[in-house]
Amino acid sequence: MAKGARKKYHKVGFLPFSVSVRVPERSKILEAVQMAGLPLHTPCGGEGTCGNCIVKITKGTFGAKATAALSGQLIAEGYALACQTKITDDLMIVLPHFQELTIESVVSPEFCKDNKDHISGVYEHNPAVVMTELQVVSPTLTNSTSDLRRLEQAFQKKTGIKNVTCPYSVLSKLALALRSKNGSVYVVSFQEREDATILDVFPRSGEKKIYGLAGDIGTTTVALHLVDMGNGEIVGTATSLNQQIKCGEDVISRINYAQKPGHLQEIQKLVIHTINNLIHAATQKAGVSKEDIYCAAFAGNTTMGHLLLKLDPHYIREEPYVPTFNDLAFIPANELGLSMNPEAKIYLSPSVGSYVGGDITAGMLCTPILRSSQKISLFIDAGTNGELVVGNKDWLITCACSAGPAFEGGGIKCGMPASEGAIETIELNDRGQVKCKVIGEIDAKGLCGSGLVDLLAELFIHGFIDRYGKFTAEKIPDRIVETDEGKAFLLVDASKSFWGKDICITERDITNLIRTKGAVFSACSLLLKSVGLRFDEIDSFYIAGGFGQHLDVENAVRIGLLPDLERKQFRYIGNSSLLGSYLILLSDKNRKMVQKIARQMTYIELNTEPGYMNEFTGSLFLPHTDMELFPSVGRILARREQGKRE
Amino acid sequence: MAKGARKKYHKVGFLPFSVSVRVPERSKILEAVQMAGLPLHTPCGGEGTCGNCIVKITKGTFGAKATAALSGQLIAEGYALACQTKITDDLMIVLPHFQELTIESVVSPEFCKDNKDHISGVYEHNPAVVMTELQVVSPTLTNSTSDLRRLEQAFQKKTGIKNVTCPYSVLSKLALALRSKNGSVYVVSFQEREDATILDVFPRSGEKKIYGLAGDIGTTTVALHLVDMGNGEIVGTATSLNQQIKCGEDVISRINYAQKPGHLQEIQKLVIHTINNLIHAATQKAGVSKEDIYCAAFAGNTTMGHLLLKLDPHYIREEPYVPTFNDLAFIPANELGLSMNPEAKIYLSPSVGSYVGGDITAGMLCTPILRSSQKISLFIDAGTNGELVVGNKDWLITCACSAGPAFEGGGIKCGMPASEGAIETIELNDRGQVKCKVIGEIDAKGLCGSGLVDLLAELFIHGFIDRYGKFTAEKIPDRIVETDEGKAFLLVDASKSFWGKDICITERDITNLIRTKGAVFSACSLLLKSVGLRFDEIDSFYIAGGFGQHLDVENAVRIGLLPDLERKQFRYIGNSSLLGSYLILLSDKNRKMVQKIARQMTYIELNTEPGYMNEFTGSLFLPHTDMELFPSVGRILARREQGKRE
Repeated sequence: MAKGARKKYHKVGFLPFSVSVRVPERSKILEAVQMAGLPLHTPCGGEGTCGNCIVKITKGTFGAKATAALSGQLIAEGYALACQTKITDDLMIVLPHFQELTIESVVSPEFCKDNKDHISGVYEHNPAVVMTELQVVSPTLTNSTSDLRRLEQAFQKKTGIKNVTCPYSVLSKLALALRSKNGSVYVVSFQEREDATILDVFPRSGEKKIYGLAGDIGTTTVALHLVDMGNGEIVGTATSLNQQIKCGEDVISRINYAQKPGHLQEIQKLVIHTINNLIHAATQKAGVSKEDIYCAAFAGNTTMGHLLLKLDPHYIREEPYVPTFNDLAFIPANELGLSMNPEAKIYLSPSVGSYVGGDITAGMLCTPILRSSQKISLFIDAGTNGELVVGNKDWLITCACSAGPAFEGGGIKCGMPASEGAIETIELNDRGQVKCKVIGEIDAKGLCGSGLVDLLAELFIHGFIDRYGKFTAEKIPDRIVETDEGKAFLLVDASKSFWGKDICITERDITNLIRTKGAVFSACSLLLKSVGLRFDEIDSFYIAGGFGQHLDVENAVRIGLLPDLERKQFRYIGNSSLLGSYLILLSDKNRKMVQKIARQMTYIELNTEPGYMNEFTGSLFLPHTDMELFPSVGRILARREQGKRE
Repeated sequence: MAKGARKKYHKVGFLPFSVSVRVPERSKILEAVQMAGLPLHTPCGGEGTCGNCIVKITKGTFGAKATAALSGQLIAEGYALACQTKITDDLMIVLPHFQELTIESVVSPEFCKDNKDHISGVYEHNPAVVMTELQVVSPTLTNSTSDLRRLEQAFQKKTGIKNVTCPYSVLSKLALALRSKNGSVYVVSFQEREDATILDVFPRSGEKKIYGLAGDIGTTTVALHLVDMGNGEIVGTATSLNQQIKCGEDVISRINYAQKPGHLQEIQKLVIHTINNLIHAATQKAGVSKEDIYCAAFAGNTTMGHLLLKLDPHYIREEPYVPTFNDLAFIPANELGLSMNPEAKIYLSPSVGSYVGGDITAGMLCTPILRSSQKISLFIDAGTNGELVVGNKDWLITCACSAGPAFEGGGIKCGMPASEGAIETIELNDRGQVKCKVIGEIDAKGLCGSGLVDLLAELFIHGFIDRYGKFTAEKIPDRIVETDEGKAFLLVDASKSFWGKDICITERDITNLIRTKGAVFSACSLLLKSVGLRFDEIDSFYIAGGFGQHLDVENAVRIGLLPDLERKQFRYIGNSSLLGSYLILLSDKNRKMVQKIARQMTYIELNTEPGYMNEFTGSLFLPHTDMELFPSVGRILARREQGKRE
């Protein structure tokens, strides 16, 4: 550069973060990403070979040339490799994982009604936040009662509620609201027993709807339903990765991250941004104003709850593992910085303790466990952390295990959440040929949880991997490819995949999946033993978690994730934390039930149970070191051997 | 100025406003004051003759020369005339009225105890906000109850209160507070019936005190007591003009001012600044941290209440004169921007309607009216607006009259609030020689209300003014001086006054005072007539307002401000709004009593009463057009005439 010439800078923005940085001309996109503090894994070390750092450029010009890791067609569609592309223009960039923000337009609340026999928290539309039409008497010289008092009187008369509180923010709108339409107003109120708080008041003109949010604040994924509080209809759903993921993939890393000065503020902002982005997306799509959201029910594990409230999660991971709170009163939205009406009431599903959180208590509402004293059920949520509950109406015990994010696509070379482009079911034939189903009408991008379960089971049952999870390569030499992470089984050829690169599973991925399923199974087994129960005494087995819509129970048993019970005893209930939040949002009775569930649960610490390591080690095989536990799998393997001999 | 030379600027700051402006060198101070939007009256039009724009310069150098309006000694002490002084340095300036901020160090709460037979709101130390010492159980592996729950349990056990709420802000301190001293904590809580809200929690170390504020938010003057909530002791008092005064001197001007865009925000900020400055002064003096103030009880008229809360006061002055609120629940300090603990609970004494506010209901607590069903009492608060209450334990009627700020020193040439330098008592002899008493150990600055009452009475009784309030100059030619506002009676010669200028009273001032006393007296008279009562049926007569400590009842009767009853029937109770707030702050029972008072009062609109104008016109004489109403004054005048003849 000529002496004295000014260095040229470009502005690079990142979606969906609302983050932007200024970087010198000809910096690489990867450098801008790192400067912005955003997550982007580059296993090949920035050599342009692994293709993991693919980004989409939605604004600005750039130059890129087709390579093995990036097809010409993808370049034409605006994709580039961050490690190879130099910045010569102002750019707006979407990072790969964050493209997974999905919006479903209208989901029916019929699901809950249809499933009412299966869930304890009955679908009921009786929310604490309601909108009421009121006719408030106009003042005269002989009745000069204050605006507030006249409103209270009209409200009391209509609802029968005696104690009415009107916060300061509403007071400032009152005079005008009461006078605009001769005292005809809509009042939004939060009602609890004999008390009501007025959240908003406005003149009655046209139709007016109020909305609520049900949310699952997962360590990996955050999912929201936008709900019409008038009829319970879900008018939008939005899901994305939790932006906190850049601070670590599991709760322990997040807790550690939060310890450094300023980090607690930062990590809270990341989850608030995540939620606000989802609110933005869902309300835009549904044509709803954020100001019309007056309530929310969120569920998340105990650490997520603490970070959402900017509470130091330090003591959660320190003996005696005591959280700051388990159950809280409603929190005003404005204290958290959430994009909704400032007076909106936020409820967090209660935790049981440091390692069994509100996602589990909310999830329990979606099971019928609390309906029977006779039958014993088991509930398992296999998210990044696995949590289990066993019991019935009269007793409940619970434990947690560190499963890892493998079934949510985390830590797996071609893993991804269960969203558009994810392979959700897989079948192999004897020659290793693949038949798979992808979510959405596009080419495959990667593998979600249910696809990984299928793949592991099919590889094992067809003998393409052994009981240790190692490739028996001689059988299918043409399906085994070499990658930068070692040998891999090829599922989708680069030419047929969305990103233009091979979709495959490595031996390392398989080991990872086996550890995860082993952690879950051994926890189930140990929890039952701790109360003197056997698997065959369990009546029903409820499975929740981020596997995706199509978890195949048969395959889950074949890999030893689930015990070898009758298949009809299993029920996959999906994201029960989100569904439970929805039930809580719409019914104060369900809110009280979830509080009761939290109080009733007894927490068992597995690590201190004798035999923990034995159980876990025994589970690190397909399906298990003790084949007698999996007779049906034994029969299949026997048939396979017999078929080979024939 | 040479072409191309940079214009030089100086920074000028104003106390106690925390306002500063940048002005070009050699601007006049008056221009800087106007640029800052601050109030400074210049009756002489900036000619340097009236001396009204005198300011004190506390930082920076300036040049001034002694004139008739400004003595050399004052210049030496840092005073200057704003209209004459050019700015050649960065300056810090104190405006004249705002020097009146006074701090009394320690006032005894004994007053209330001593006067308990005279007040309905008995002095009682049983506040809603209290500090409690708690020992919270430490967690163990076998009892891993959350921090919040353990705190709640300890609190419930100690207080017997069942429903405990912990706001978000306290939650964030909890984990550390509980662990710093092995669970030994101080908890500040707000308790009401069966409910408590935790306002703060901190580890127990050393002695800790919590404080509250009692405040009178007057149209002209704002006064605060800083109170030790532990024992009720008043540890500091601070008073200043309400900064809103620059937006108009009475409530109607303030309401009008607030109508323009942005003005409501501005006028609210002015009163918040006023209060915050007082809080700053009182806490500094007492060595108290603002964060340790956890509650406040304020009283003010209805307009002041609305402006404090940034509520449009528009409808207060528009038929049918309906305020937005009369009685409110507690408001958190952080919503108003007050300098105290963000969770502090603010209570506003309830209004009766648009023209009888919380200052009157609070003031009623300081009278024994509510103690007797037999005796009928009259309460009058002669502030900028006059309000009257008549009744007993069983019935109360009230009305308002527009008295004007004359008795608080407003609209009077040498008027001022009852603070340091104010002449508070005056005696004249037959030759018009003056004997007066000044508040504080300094030369006189001006006249406060009680001084003005004395002066008017003495001028009248000695025949220096006639019944119309006109000077009978022939009697005391050497005491009558000419001013820019016409003829005036000289009280203190310029050489002996603090500001180095004459202290005098003009005919215009006297007319102003007569209108004010006439408005008050005719309102009293009319209110009694409206319920068929005569003055001689009144048992006791309570006088509140900003007259100053030494209102002479005899003189007040002589000028016809008060009716001609037995002198022992009168009782001057000072700033009863402030005292009532203090009683409310310390006792939730008194808070409930003031609410009952507000509900019980019937408001009478005087303007629509027949005979209103007649009553008022008849009162525009000294003491009244109907001398039969003032027999004792008649006797004095007769003796004077007789003395002259002898």
